[in-house]
Amino acid sequence: TIIHLFKEIFKAGLELQEDNHSKALLVSRKKKPEDTIIEINGEKFGDGNQHFIFGPCAVESYEQVAQVAEQVKKKGLKLLRGGAFKPRTSPYDFQGLGFEGLEILKRVADEYDLAVVSEIVNPADLEKALDYIDVIQIGARNMQNFELLKAAGEVNKPVLLKRGMSATVADFINAAEYINSRGNGNIILCERGIRTYETSTRNTLDITAVPILKQETHLPVMVDVTHSTGRRDLLIPAAKAALAIGADGVMAEVHPDPAVALSDSAQQMDFEMFDRFMKEVKS
Amino acid sequence: TIIHLFKEIFKAGLELQEDNHSKALLVSRKKKPEDTIIEINGEKFGDGNQHFIFGPCAVESYEQVAQVAEQVKKKGLKLLRGGAFKPRTSPYDFQGLGFEGLEILKRVADEYDLAVVSEIVNPADLEKALDYIDVIQIGARNMQNFELLKAAGEVNKPVLLKRGMSATVADFINAAEYINSRGNGNIILCERGIRTYETSTRNTLDITAVPILKQETHLPVMVDVTHSTGRRDLLIPAAKAALAIGADGVMAEVHPDPAVALSDSAQQMDFEMFDRFMKEVKS
Amino acid sequence: TIIHLFKEIFKAGLELQEDNHSKALLVSRKKKPEDTIIEINGEKFGDGNQHFIFGPCAVESYEQVAQVAEQVKKKGLKLLRGGAFKPRTSPYDFQGLGFEGLEILKRVADEYDLAVVSEIVNPADLEKALDYIDVIQIGARNMQNFELLKAAGEVNKPVLLKRGMSATVADFINAAEYINSRGNGNIILCERGIRTYETSTRNTLDITAVPILKQETHLPVMVDVTHSTGRRDLLIPAAKAALAIGADGVMAEVHPDPAVALSDSAQQMDFEMFDRFMKEVKS
Amino acid sequence: TIIHLFKEIFKAGLELQEDNHSKALLVSRKKKPEDTIIEINGEKFGDGNQHFIFGPCAVESYEQVAQVAEQVKKKGLKLLRGGAFKPRTSPYDFQGLGFEGLEILKRVADEYDLAVVSEIVNPADLEKALDYIDVIQIGARNMQNFELLKAAGEVNKPVLLKRGMSATVADFINAAEYINSRGNGNIILCERGIRTYETSTRNTLDITAVPILKQETHLPVMVDVTHSTGRRDLLIPAAKAALAIGADGVMAEVHPDPAVALSDSAQQMDFEMFDRFMKEVKS
Repeated sequence: TIIHLFKEIFKAGLELQEDNHSKALLVSRKKKPEDTIIEINGEKFGDGNQHFIFGPCAVESYEQVAQVAEQVKKKGLKLLRGGAFKPRTSPYDFQGLGFEGLEILKRVADEYDLAVVSEIVNPADLEKALDYIDVIQIGARNMQNFELLKAAGEVNKPVLLKRGMSATVADFINAAEYINSRGNGNIILCERGIRTYETSTRNTLDITAVPILKQETHLPVMVDVTHSTGRRDLLIPAAKAALAIGADGVMAEVHPDPAVALSDSAQQMDFEMFDRFMKEVKS
Repeated sequence: TIIHLFKEIFKAGLELQEDNHSKALLVSRKKKPEDTIIEINGEKFGDGNQHFIFGPCAVESYEQVAQVAEQVKKKGLKLLRGGAFKPRTSPYDFQGLGFEGLEILKRVADEYDLAVVSEIVNPADLEKALDYIDVIQIGARNMQNFELLKAAGEVNKPVLLKRGMSATVADFINAAEYINSRGNGNIILCERGIRTYETSTRNTLDITAVPILKQETHLPVMVDVTHSTGRRDLLIPAAKAALAIGADGVMAEVHPDPAVALSDSAQQMDFEMFDRFMKEVKS
Repeated sequence: TIIHLFKEIFKAGLELQEDNHSKALLVSRKKKPEDTIIEINGEKFGDGNQHFIFGPCAVESYEQVAQVAEQVKKKGLKLLRGGAFKPRTSPYDFQGLGFEGLEILKRVADEYDLAVVSEIVNPADLEKALDYIDVIQIGARNMQNFELLKAAGEVNKPVLLKRGMSATVADFINAAEYINSRGNGNIILCERGIRTYETSTRNTLDITAVPILKQETHLPVMVDVTHSTGRRDLLIPAAKAALAIGADGVMAEVHPDPAVALSDSAQQMDFEMFDRFMKEVKS
Repeated sequence: TIIHLFKEIFKAGLELQEDNHSKALLVSRKKKPEDTIIEINGEKFGDGNQHFIFGPCAVESYEQVAQVAEQVKKKGLKLLRGGAFKPRTSPYDFQGLGFEGLEILKRVADEYDLAVVSEIVNPADLEKALDYIDVIQIGARNMQNFELLKAAGEVNKPVLLKRGMSATVADFINAAEYINSRGNGNIILCERGIRTYETSTRNTLDITAVPILKQETHLPVMVDVTHSTGRRDLLIPAAKAALAIGADGVMAEVHPDPAVALSDSAQQMDFEMFDRFMKEVKS
């Protein structure tokens, strides 16, 4: 019948549209079917193995960072995270040590042969920060700070891009495309929980975003278990789920003494728990 | 100092409050620290092993159910699900076969020695339905249909209670308490995704609700991977994540020919995929 | 060009689909362009004038209800609401007086010549309840309790249907269609807030749902300012917004002494505020 | 009893905490009880009267902006909005004309004696932009771009700060505090809809945020009816609700020919509708 024919044309048109749209993106599997592998200090993100990034929420002092680095090194890990520029909800909360914090990270990283992951929040700081860090982190609150994305797209360093608090998977992929479209294709995506009505966790870990991102893009996908849950008691179960569903790695916060941490004290692991985490999670 | 003392008193008061509240609930770990184990047709939900419930979204015919039952049986599984009373968004969608559907389920279950899980939607049907089913399912849309919960609390059959689409973990636990408070403590909780802004999946699977429910209650916790994702391509990854994070089991829909199913055709597995599912997921 | 032609066909197909879908519903404007007007005790909901429904959250005693009725009457209003069957999150919260509560409502309503609006939660109670009430309220938690909707569709009394906590506008319209499809077209829709991440209000009042519902359906649309905000200080502003945007009326809770109310004590108005409410809101 | 005493101490502690927290903020009513009034080109935002800001989504050409300016002027209005730097989800969407766009705005504004409101997205552009604009708009996606907030706090121009898509009211107030804490107290808050599960509107207009913001802060509060609804047919009803609930003003997009607009073509008003808008909305 005519109606049936019409429906078929309609469906074909629909698929055509979607097809064209996905095909256009540089980060999409349609554009590049094989996995992008990003090598950082010997770790190859996207190669099918599990990778880990640990470190304190915020850089507080040389001693604090060095203590964490020692534990990271002892476990055979290669990356260290730490916040020097801290985007905080209130202007009166600890805002991080800035470049002084990056200097501490760099010094410790050199001593322990680790690569540094740290968040940059201002496009103007990016160039200078490249001397200190190995991976540029772009945080959830800045996922649609397009000026920062463009700036990160013009440098030659891997970018760890966190999903925005209310970003759809499509928004997230487009944010990565901003970076890639400027020339930098070394992007690691990081699911970190989305904002929902549920209050038993700080955010809701959208675990199925991981296989969707792996299907739709060729980029490595990590899960930040600290910010998605906001609860120390959920870090190990969440990490197991993340790796089981196909994440390329897990990110979590470790602090020598979480109770006195200048930020996020309720959700960082101490060293005893860090040991347990690696024993239970790593396969 | 006085301020410090005050803060200590304040904290103690806070804990006291929370403490009292949790202690009151029959379903809470505080009330009963050991796991509740519910035996159904030889499967012991809550015993630390993995359990599975499969079957078609809706009962359509004897042949359809029997074909699925044969596959379920062949895999050594013991439970069969199938909808006879279907809560559908539109009154013009297929509403299920009702008691005729329950009769089909019962006949097939007897032939294949399987236990039947089926949703009941009207308190008035509950008594009669007990002759046909082994587990009363209460669906997401009825999680706060308190009359139905009370009725289910007064019978002597296990209840599989699904989380409401916008229920908090606390709402969910209280819904279980409605059943338990009327005398029936054989309750299996089932996470099935929550409604969020994200549109790439039908619902957002709240995976960390699983360990929270296991901590807060002594009840077995399942994950319905079909309704949480609404996408066939996510069923296997979601099931792996669910079991990795500590779920007692997984529930999914299987149909001999999903393309012609009267409901949920986009998300049911065919038999080939059902085989693959069990091979990849079961440990 | 061919591509352009194809796009035009595609768009036409899209509109055709949507068109067909909306046309099917009895509650839609497409089916019946003129407004449905529902007369209750002389008030004509849907006639373009403002209508009000007030009363206590829960019926607690004859004295309590009578005191409120006196105030309602004094303002020239015609309807009285009050909960006899209370759906509460916890089984240990006050569950209402049941039929005893309906008897109190009926007695008071007769004495003050008011019509009674009260929630029914069990299809089995509906028939009997018709002797006591003039408007059947179906609450948010039961918006997709389809058995209750069907039962309400088979009686000859107006139904006040509240939007579910996570119901889309389309879900809401379909729930109304369940009632209408069984023969009862006297339905008043009631927006009462939706569940979002925002915590400064109990729910988020989705104010633009009002004009959308007025466009899409021919039914009267009310706003429950009590449950949408959960805050006494927002009742008057929210009522003004509701009427400004085109709602046919407003519903709110009034109690002789909110501080000792058995439920919702934080959000009911006392008589002094009730006076102020009517003075400021009514145009 | 001791328990009662304990509870009283507990409550007192709770209030003390909340009290201290609110008191700290410069933007709070506790700090400054009287309304902040911000004068821009003769319009006094926060003086209790209604104020309006109109203009095209994006600056496209001198002719386009001039045509809109003429209509704005004819209605006796004093402000003109227009986007020169456009934050777009995809890098391949029109990104705005940048400083060339600001020059067009400035030229037109001078010709029609209007003040210019335009979004700035990069802290590095702020200083230079001050020569062209009268009000710095900070968009929803940058509400927690704290570097931009700090930069806006250090200049002497009014800031129109839009609420983030998933910002709580508390987050929003803290974002304003970032600006105020750097010295600039001339801040207009703008509710523009939040991201929820509902899909019938682009965002969900959180109308009760308006009276809450008016209570909690001393700043003027506007409502952007274009981005909150994303639907031309809802602009007038939403504006009526906004003013009824106490907003200091309304913001909306106007374009000479919305069908050919380079962005947001589905939601901008044409001149005929602009006339109708002002006739129906203004009191």
